[in-house]
Amino acid sequence: MALPPEFHEIAKRVNNWGRWGADDEIGTLNLITDDVVRRAAATVTSGRRIPLALPLQQDGVQTGLIPGRVNPLHTMTSVNAELFGPGTVATSDDVVTMGLQAATHWDGLAHVSHGGRLYNGRPADSVTAHARAAFSGIEKAGPVVSRGVLLDVARAQGVERLDGGHAVTPEDLDAAEELAGTTVGEGDIVLVRTGQVQHYLEGDKEAYGFPSPGLSVRTPEWFHARNVAAVANDTLTFEIVPPEIENLWLPVHALHLVEMGMPQGQNWNLEELSAACAEERRHTFLLSATPEPFVGGTGAPVAPVAVL
Amino acid sequence: MALPPEFHEIAKRVNNWGRWGADDEIGTLNLITDDVVRRAAATVTSGRRIPLALPLQQDGVQTGLIPGRVNPLHTMTSVNAELFGPGTVATSDDVVTMGLQAATHWDGLAHVSHGGRLYNGRPADSVTAHARAAFSGIEKAGPVVSRGVLLDVARAQGVERLDGGHAVTPEDLDAAEELAGTTVGEGDIVLVRTGQVQHYLEGDKEAYGFPSPGLSVRTPEWFHARNVAAVANDTLTFEIVPPEIENLWLPVHALHLVEMGMPQGQNWNLEELSAACAEERRHTFLLSATPEPFVGGTGAPVAPVAVL
Amino acid sequence: MALPPEFHEIAKRVNNWGRWGADDEIGTLNLITDDVVRRAAATVTSGRRIPLALPLQQDGVQTGLIPGRVNPLHTMTSVNAELFGPGTVATSDDVVTMGLQAATHWDGLAHVSHGGRLYNGRPADSVTAHARAAFSGIEKAGPVVSRGVLLDVARAQGVERLDGGHAVTPEDLDAAEELAGTTVGEGDIVLVRTGQVQHYLEGDKEAYGFPSPGLSVRTPEWFHARNVAAVANDTLTFEIVPPEIENLWLPVHALHLVEMGMPQGQNWNLEELSAACAEERRHTFLLSATPEPFVGGTGAPVAPVAVL
Amino acid sequence: MALPPEFHEIAKRVNNWGRWGADDEIGTLNLITDDVVRRAAATVTSGRRIPLALPLQQDGVQTGLIPGRVNPLHTMTSVNAELFGPGTVATSDDVVTMGLQAATHWDGLAHVSHGGRLYNGRPADSVTAHARAAFSGIEKAGPVVSRGVLLDVARAQGVERLDGGHAVTPEDLDAAEELAGTTVGEGDIVLVRTGQVQHYLEGDKEAYGFPSPGLSVRTPEWFHARNVAAVANDTLTFEIVPPEIENLWLPVHALHLVEMGMPQGQNWNLEELSAACAEERRHTFLLSATPEPFVGGTGAPVAPVAVL
Repeated sequence: MALPPEFHEIAKRVNNWGRWGADDEIGTLNLITDDVVRRAAATVTSGRRIPLALPLQQDGVQTGLIPGRVNPLHTMTSVNAELFGPGTVATSDDVVTMGLQAATHWDGLAHVSHGGRLYNGRPADSVTAHARAAFSGIEKAGPVVSRGVLLDVARAQGVERLDGGHAVTPEDLDAAEELAGTTVGEGDIVLVRTGQVQHYLEGDKEAYGFPSPGLSVRTPEWFHARNVAAVANDTLTFEIVPPEIENLWLPVHALHLVEMGMPQGQNWNLEELSAACAEERRHTFLLSATPEPFVGGTGAPVAPVAVL
Repeated sequence: MALPPEFHEIAKRVNNWGRWGADDEIGTLNLITDDVVRRAAATVTSGRRIPLALPLQQDGVQTGLIPGRVNPLHTMTSVNAELFGPGTVATSDDVVTMGLQAATHWDGLAHVSHGGRLYNGRPADSVTAHARAAFSGIEKAGPVVSRGVLLDVARAQGVERLDGGHAVTPEDLDAAEELAGTTVGEGDIVLVRTGQVQHYLEGDKEAYGFPSPGLSVRTPEWFHARNVAAVANDTLTFEIVPPEIENLWLPVHALHLVEMGMPQGQNWNLEELSAACAEERRHTFLLSATPEPFVGGTGAPVAPVAVL
Repeated sequence: MALPPEFHEIAKRVNNWGRWGADDEIGTLNLITDDVVRRAAATVTSGRRIPLALPLQQDGVQTGLIPGRVNPLHTMTSVNAELFGPGTVATSDDVVTMGLQAATHWDGLAHVSHGGRLYNGRPADSVTAHARAAFSGIEKAGPVVSRGVLLDVARAQGVERLDGGHAVTPEDLDAAEELAGTTVGEGDIVLVRTGQVQHYLEGDKEAYGFPSPGLSVRTPEWFHARNVAAVANDTLTFEIVPPEIENLWLPVHALHLVEMGMPQGQNWNLEELSAACAEERRHTFLLSATPEPFVGGTGAPVAPVAVL
Repeated sequence: MALPPEFHEIAKRVNNWGRWGADDEIGTLNLITDDVVRRAAATVTSGRRIPLALPLQQDGVQTGLIPGRVNPLHTMTSVNAELFGPGTVATSDDVVTMGLQAATHWDGLAHVSHGGRLYNGRPADSVTAHARAAFSGIEKAGPVVSRGVLLDVARAQGVERLDGGHAVTPEDLDAAEELAGTTVGEGDIVLVRTGQVQHYLEGDKEAYGFPSPGLSVRTPEWFHARNVAAVANDTLTFEIVPPEIENLWLPVHALHLVEMGMPQGQNWNLEELSAACAEERRHTFLLSATPEPFVGGTGAPVAPVAVL
């Protein structure tokens, strides 16, 4: 079952292979220049910091649907252990087992492939059990700090949250951009708010996962035209569930990660940020969102912060 | 074997219990105000971003010395799996098992106790296997973004790295502050560079751990006087190894975490930052260092970034 | 909320503390003597071997109800890695993260406490995060090989499986013993079949867990009177769910493990054994069921085999 | 670097592909018939049970040499948690992360491949991250109970342990068989004692791993001629380290697992068994050694027991 012609046409239009050289492993993150960062820092006016990560815990967003993507199992290896004798300073230590994409995370460029290829034409089989991602591992991303722009699609549409199955279209993004009062530009990191994470926050994990609003297969061209560095949203899989085009699963993953070389973020909690932006009547900020540098990671947990 | 009187005298002088109320769980992080953050953003001039985390991998800094603090074991749960049928978009996913304090991390306030007490007088037995840290869990820290100041003690002393066993004294900090050309102030996050991490970077893990330079038991007063929000360095245990005062292990942990309620960071790679600061002739920057929000964590991995 | 008088009366009658000395850590396993084992070996007549463990896999019996008791997450650390150069012998290796009590397992004697006490009066707080079970860790059990007796309660009652909530009574055990055509005796390991595991085998994990038949609080005396060495059944929690006596959870755990010092097994698949025993018209066999010797384990996976 | 002609000649002589049909996934385990098991049970005379597994703990035999094969990290998820309210029955639960081949284990047939093939000609790439071993996963082994024969090579040579690098030859096996006073025959499981595990038991892990005695590349023919079902020994890698033939690593793995389809065991503690056999002047027994049934496992922990 090949991917449909429709997909391949879009793919051709957004493809970035070779744009930053044959050896490039970080794609659109190249668009975050020193200049972009200086302008990002200049957006800080109130000094308010908004956390965008969900808490890491066994009771996380995963329901077992995605095999192996386990919620954090966090246990103590010692509790007030007086390792140096009774009455000495006591230490508590802990360990975790978790899927790198289980909670708030970045998908790295090696997370998906199609037609046997990763971003920049690398062979898909360069990902192995032994070495994990030999190319475009998440550790290659380096520091991810840029101007963040909240595209509050739910608010722009005057709803608390988009309906399950809603396709966020380029027109939706236009409307949210207008609400934001800014122009999305080169090197920006765009946060698309659907409000879907409210289901999880209210305790309904099943509803969070399915059905879900997500980004239409037509949106990658929107991001491509603006030279966006990365995109994140507040849903489990980033994409529309069930899919927009029958039987075509994960098309936006394939366009963003493989064709454009653009990281994408999932399970970001944009609720507090939405309120703060509305309050401060501004939708741009310094976004700091460096993934944990797992060597060869196809993705990684991140604790993103918007500084307003 | 009780802690010596010397320890208790310093403890009395730096104690912050009750300072931010009886219910406070974040200690000196309270000192990072919106105003501090605005000033931190104003330090950004070049837009350069320096990563301070070590890569996360099986070949990490742990040698087995600290029981249970395991290096990241990172494995794939799928590799280019075509979950939706042959020819569809293929996904690769990964999981990790690791000690929360195994690599570049923040120690949270619940990481150590002495005399049965945690920061703010909480009972040490509020840390349990079942709930982990009920008070001052690392998820309570929230966003950690502030002005960072590099105190490059090694460079101030004209050496590549301090000797193993070297006690970084208040006088050493003064000299490094002078080199930095700034005054450490309220809400700052101080990064103390010893150069010790060079051992690990050069492949010698044993030498990295022992003997090690570290902060003297006299330095917490220095940080206390300046109302510092947090401190991190580039060593395995933060402290002098073998200990400055015979048989007194982890005194600085106990003073920082329990008495002051001040998070401390370990295994931060300050080498690239040292070079960049020397080059740009400045030692202050926006520091973004939010810990992964593990609920009840006694510490957490962090991927800190200095924005210059 | 103290345990009811009814519980304490039974507890007194079945208590084995001190029976094998104040230092004993293995309780009724002491009843498996060389002589018992010789007689167990003598039961082998057909040479048929019946496995009693459920397969270990992510899709195991746990549903998230018991916090932290995670199904096996089994991943590859290498797949056909030619570690010694191209064309050499290639190796595949794997790791697992799992709850020790997640699948077919023995509960060790340190798995439960009541009133601050473990078996033989040991303090409950001898179980710690750092050292796990200091007394009666599962590794102390040593080899568990004895005569096994299948008490096929479902078959004795002429049903495929007992109803959820059914209390297996001493009278039920009598009837099953009569069907078995043997007398349960000293050192025997008794396998009580309810048929409940059929729910899991048919794909309904929820039904497997709740409601569930289980052993009545009156049965420990039956086992005590016969000097049984251990008991296992084919349910998730061993006990009746919801509980036989309102609000009294895990009374049989407390009686078996704490009072009697008798290990108990859960999630044993007795379906094939039931068929084989019916076919061979015998209900005794050599049972080999040594727990994996986790040092300080409060329980352990086991791959039990009945040799007929 | 192809495998040498010498290897291929032996491979041809011991190859079992197709012997039990094109669909067979368990190889020489087919040789354990009901009849073999009946005879195994008949060897039980004293009723003594000898455990052959090393304790499972963080301080296990792995030193980091084999990437990803981590020692058991065993932590508590709850310690005396009164889940049903104060004063109720309290439970302690634990989890583990470990390499399936980290301690006493069986290598399954999918553990190695050469020339792109597994046992019975299956493609090596049938082992994947997603499904692990699709063919010959360790769960296919089923119950492993048979006659065990101790070939005490060290004792037969009158030494406490063989020297590191010593090649156990067919002639060594002959001598140990003579000492055993039995003839190794069809369906037997052979335990080859070198004494090497003494290094680990005495606390020297490095010496345990290297240099090590092991089975010569000439021994698979010896096992093949006798129709042995499986072989285990008391070393870290089973094989001679450094290798018998320069640059030829793991030849015995390739011959046993791939060519013969014969499971092999490593890190078995044969010290107590050696003493017991010498004492009882017999070297045969009922061996019960069923691997934990990990679905798709390329190996599995086992807690083997010899019943004398």
